[in-house]
Amino acid sequence: MVGIIMGSSSDLKVMQEAADILTELGVSYEIDVVSAHRTPEKMVEYGKTARQRGLKVVIAGAGGAAHLPGMVASLTTLPVIGVPVKSSNSIDGWDSVLSILQMPSGVPVATVALNGARNAGILAAQIVGTFDETVAQRLHDYKEDMKAKVEKMSQEVKNS
Amino acid sequence: MVGIIMGSSSDLKVMQEAADILTELGVSYEIDVVSAHRTPEKMVEYGKTARQRGLKVVIAGAGGAAHLPGMVASLTTLPVIGVPVKSSNSIDGWDSVLSILQMPSGVPVATVALNGARNAGILAAQIVGTFDETVAQRLHDYKEDMKAKVEKMSQEVKNS
Amino acid sequence: MVGIIMGSSSDLKVMQEAADILTELGVSYEIDVVSAHRTPEKMVEYGKTARQRGLKVVIAGAGGAAHLPGMVASLTTLPVIGVPVKSSNSIDGWDSVLSILQMPSGVPVATVALNGARNAGILAAQIVGTFDETVAQRLHDYKEDMKAKVEKMSQEVKNS
Amino acid sequence: MVGIIMGSSSDLKVMQEAADILTELGVSYEIDVVSAHRTPEKMVEYGKTARQRGLKVVIAGAGGAAHLPGMVASLTTLPVIGVPVKSSNSIDGWDSVLSILQMPSGVPVATVALNGARNAGILAAQIVGTFDETVAQRLHDYKEDMKAKVEKMSQEVKNS
Amino acid sequence: MVGIIMGSSSDLKVMQEAADILTELGVSYEIDVVSAHRTPEKMVEYGKTARQRGLKVVIAGAGGAAHLPGMVASLTTLPVIGVPVKSSNSIDGWDSVLSILQMPSGVPVATVALNGARNAGILAAQIVGTFDETVAQRLHDYKEDMKAKVEKMSQEVKNS
Amino acid sequence: MVGIIMGSSSDLKVMQEAADILTELGVSYEIDVVSAHRTPEKMVEYGKTARQRGLKVVIAGAGGAAHLPGMVASLTTLPVIGVPVKSSNSIDGWDSVLSILQMPSGVPVATVALNGARNAGILAAQIVGTFDETVAQRLHDYKEDMKAKVEKMSQEVKNS
Amino acid sequence: MVGIIMGSSSDLKVMQEAADILTELGVSYEIDVVSAHRTPEKMVEYGKTARQRGLKVVIAGAGGAAHLPGMVASLTTLPVIGVPVKSSNSIDGWDSVLSILQMPSGVPVATVALNGARNAGILAAQIVGTFDETVAQRLHDYKEDMKAKVEKMSQEVKNS
Amino acid sequence: MVGIIMGSSSDLKVMQEAADILTELGVSYEIDVVSAHRTPEKMVEYGKTARQRGLKVVIAGAGGAAHLPGMVASLTTLPVIGVPVKSSNSIDGWDSVLSILQMPSGVPVATVALNGARNAGILAAQIVGTFDETVAQRLHDYKEDMKAKVEKMSQEVKNS
Repeated sequence: MVGIIMGSSSDLKVMQEAADILTELGVSYEIDVVSAHRTPEKMVEYGKTARQRGLKVVIAGAGGAAHLPGMVASLTTLPVIGVPVKSSNSIDGWDSVLSILQMPSGVPVATVALNGARNAGILAAQIVGTFDETVAQRLHDYKEDMKAKVEKMSQEVKNS
Repeated sequence: MVGIIMGSSSDLKVMQEAADILTELGVSYEIDVVSAHRTPEKMVEYGKTARQRGLKVVIAGAGGAAHLPGMVASLTTLPVIGVPVKSSNSIDGWDSVLSILQMPSGVPVATVALNGARNAGILAAQIVGTFDETVAQRLHDYKEDMKAKVEKMSQEVKNS
Repeated sequence: MVGIIMGSSSDLKVMQEAADILTELGVSYEIDVVSAHRTPEKMVEYGKTARQRGLKVVIAGAGGAAHLPGMVASLTTLPVIGVPVKSSNSIDGWDSVLSILQMPSGVPVATVALNGARNAGILAAQIVGTFDETVAQRLHDYKEDMKAKVEKMSQEVKNS
Repeated sequence: MVGIIMGSSSDLKVMQEAADILTELGVSYEIDVVSAHRTPEKMVEYGKTARQRGLKVVIAGAGGAAHLPGMVASLTTLPVIGVPVKSSNSIDGWDSVLSILQMPSGVPVATVALNGARNAGILAAQIVGTFDETVAQRLHDYKEDMKAKVEKMSQEVKNS
Repeated sequence: MVGIIMGSSSDLKVMQEAADILTELGVSYEIDVVSAHRTPEKMVEYGKTARQRGLKVVIAGAGGAAHLPGMVASLTTLPVIGVPVKSSNSIDGWDSVLSILQMPSGVPVATVALNGARNAGILAAQIVGTFDETVAQRLHDYKEDMKAKVEKMSQEVKNS
Repeated sequence: MVGIIMGSSSDLKVMQEAADILTELGVSYEIDVVSAHRTPEKMVEYGKTARQRGLKVVIAGAGGAAHLPGMVASLTTLPVIGVPVKSSNSIDGWDSVLSILQMPSGVPVATVALNGARNAGILAAQIVGTFDETVAQRLHDYKEDMKAKVEKMSQEVKNS
Repeated sequence: MVGIIMGSSSDLKVMQEAADILTELGVSYEIDVVSAHRTPEKMVEYGKTARQRGLKVVIAGAGGAAHLPGMVASLTTLPVIGVPVKSSNSIDGWDSVLSILQMPSGVPVATVALNGARNAGILAAQIVGTFDETVAQRLHDYKEDMKAKVEKMSQEVKNS
Repeated sequence: MVGIIMGSSSDLKVMQEAADILTELGVSYEIDVVSAHRTPEKMVEYGKTARQRGLKVVIAGAGGAAHLPGMVASLTTLPVIGVPVKSSNSIDGWDSVLSILQMPSGVPVATVALNGARNAGILAAQIVGTFDETVAQRLHDYKEDMKAKVEKMSQEVKNS
């Protein structure tokens, strides 16, 4: 079970991709809005109970001064994947990237690319796949599928 | 009373300047180490009780993915002043600047310059000085003093 | 009483948010266009008389090489809140952010996020709220309201 | 078992921290030098056999145009943690950060902070800890230990 | 013979300009999609056989964490020209520029401007032109043609 | 007569180069410390009287949020040359560069390179040289002298 | 007489503003397209003869790796004003800004803001105005006019 | 024959690496100081005669607003390799990187990493090696040698 959280429902259009790929890879998830700055107590509760509620990984997306991934990471020993979301009024996305990536020693956040929610979902599946052979096999098949798609592109470009 | 907090005692060499100028301006303060990522619960407690403990302003300094100022701001209705600290392994200070400055709508942090703890102290005194005439007068004198120092520099440069 | 100023009426669409939230929080304000570079003498007059005219805080917004907040801060002992405005021909907003944030020691500007006029208004209210219990209570209610809105989002996302 | 690799032995002074914390947390590891650009075939072999050799996670550190983490991620379904190393002639570390972080859709790298090898080790342990209760407990104790250290700092700063 | 490759057919709209100018300059080329991250083995094969298949230069375009040019350069002794492509979700193109440019000592990539596929084609022709007088002459004519076009602009602007 | 001003005597080690080259080129100058933020009224006076005191050009150097050049430019119709000074706690010099360069429409500052005080002096002399043939001739000789120095370097490198 | 040049007629929409303000200020100008990279010999000729043809100032606009202003500055002792133009495929304008601003010691370019052609025209007029009282008076009137426009904005905003 | 040029003898400590690797790879070269800004006419002469003097490739290194590589490229149909040199007062090397890389359409510069003169030499040898089998073989051996060095590092790290 993967927990997907985001700071605002306006992040959903980006974060939905994490949910979609987890569905595609057969990994269950729950999804919620948890704001570091507007619901700090809910966030603390979320982080502190994440493991005991059976989550294996948390995916947290946020924009601007994005504190949600790092704060949840401070509250759990589960791996936390951070998705920098390029919000309006962002300074080109640098703010969310650096706010999530540059965590101090002791509290890592596994950061993916700007708006990289799909990759966050795959990474969560890879973590689950370290002990779940079925998921690992689906990841293997997913890689084969990507390869096939590139091969199809290759044919099209050669023939164009 | 101003509360000064920082994420690590390694930030003290920067943050001490806030304490020093407050002393100089006759504004009392308390100082503590509160880490957003290593002592999140203490931070929540600190933020939630800040007003009732009689603080008027909080100055929070942190480096890297600097979440302390913004998180405390989410937990209190007091003004929170953020000091971006240029820590080792920082990416030129951009990480702490953007993590503190780019707060989402609803939860401001009054951000000062990189390593600008002295200015954070002055800003705190200015806030106190909005309702305390004695402090306001000391700020006025401080400005006059700066002017005099520049005038002294002016004489030296002209005569050099 | 809060003073809101901006370098050009083209900044009004951003700066209006400061006025709106102050109205919502029951804090009175005056609003004006004062340009550091086109009306420097008016700016000097504005800064020098701000306190005696009964202002408690000044909010100053400007874009590009944004000198208005810092210059007003040099002319008053009141707290000055700077709003970096992302103007046309700005270099992604970095120019206004750095021109406002990186003030020299002795003259702080309380900088908020790029285009963060709403947060500037809230910060001004927080400063007023350090000595005005009614405003402090409204800020508390505003926080509760934000929490409720996130909770509503949470229900929607969970049920989507 | 965690695999730690780096592009050059000059990265060892940074990457050793990953090994040290894994030792401290009781997670076994192997360590090697594998260069994307100088030993591409060894890298391909390393990536393709990582899972069957019993690795659960790969930690890859590299500087400049840092291709090692992403390329290994393209060759395995294991989670790959990338450590941007600030090498000489780096452009302030931005090159390694962006080369590792900004992976295309389909191939994530779990990126940690610049020179954040210690956090890479902790993240690897967290991944192992999703299915190994002993490691999870050690991570819990590690967090408690950090908290205690901050509390000690707190006492020192208060008494200073 | 010049080899043109790109990480995805979505890069074709940029990379086609390399093909077009090579056609214009009478230099033959082959074009294909080869993805460093989705078809790493095809990429290895491509790089290792490039010289023996008669290629003189490889032009490789990619966006984001752009590893294709550098990885191909690690696998061949042919000159490799890298074209940073500004993809969606790129951080303003900085990611692809730095991922291609900042290659470690020993493995150069001849990097051209962001989206500079046309210049990549011209550079490839210049390399061919070091030993092919006909191509060198066409490059000379191309320069003359550019000069004439500027002269035409000059007349228009003067008369406007 | 050229006016050279700077925000602090700590800028003198950079700004002295402007004075030195003006001496070398036989252009008279006066030099002073004028701080936008600490002596705003002196600055206004300086700007407003610059032309009537016989100055032809003003060179203004400042670091961080560098408002001096732009503010003086707002107060005079003389050309103002801005020298971004890389001060301590600067964010790599970007703050002073952007604060000086990105002036709004209507009030230009002739910006030179970071710490480029020598070039500011040459530019001032070029402006004087538009109507003073003697200075123009010295600038011509200076260019010849630079050429000769490069030619000497050329001989040394060729023979090394 | 001011010389306005640009690297391509595509820069004309930006550079026309320099011409317009010069017309408004009664300063004559000539305008041409001169490309550093496509017509280097014309550029050399332009630079070397600029003074003898009676020009007092050169305004040069260019985008990307913008070499035109600096190269012309190397060929004349006249003041050269550089206008960084934000061209397509520019990296947010940073390339043209830095290519024009960061000239080596000995060869200054008076750089104005990104796309700041209007300010380039005003600066050119200021240079002419150092020895032409009529132009100086028009610049003075222009400043008064700006002040009046801001005062009009002020009334509108106050009454809105 | 490869031509190595640089803007100043202060760049020699960086550019010498290009010469050294060319010697190691058995490719002859000539070396000179040619300044775009201080000896523009020598530069024009150098560029225009490069091909007829028998050069096959030009390597040009420069710092700051680095115009030498691009200007030489405008004057010859030979491939020109640009080496951004991180000079003093550079803004972290960004200025030379962008001034060299971001050439307009029609005039490419093959840009290598910041201070990457060694890679410039290898790239020049690769260009020569497209038609010189002996050089190609030496490049192959050089690659093998790098591989062996990494393998040695690998043994050392494994045994440490």
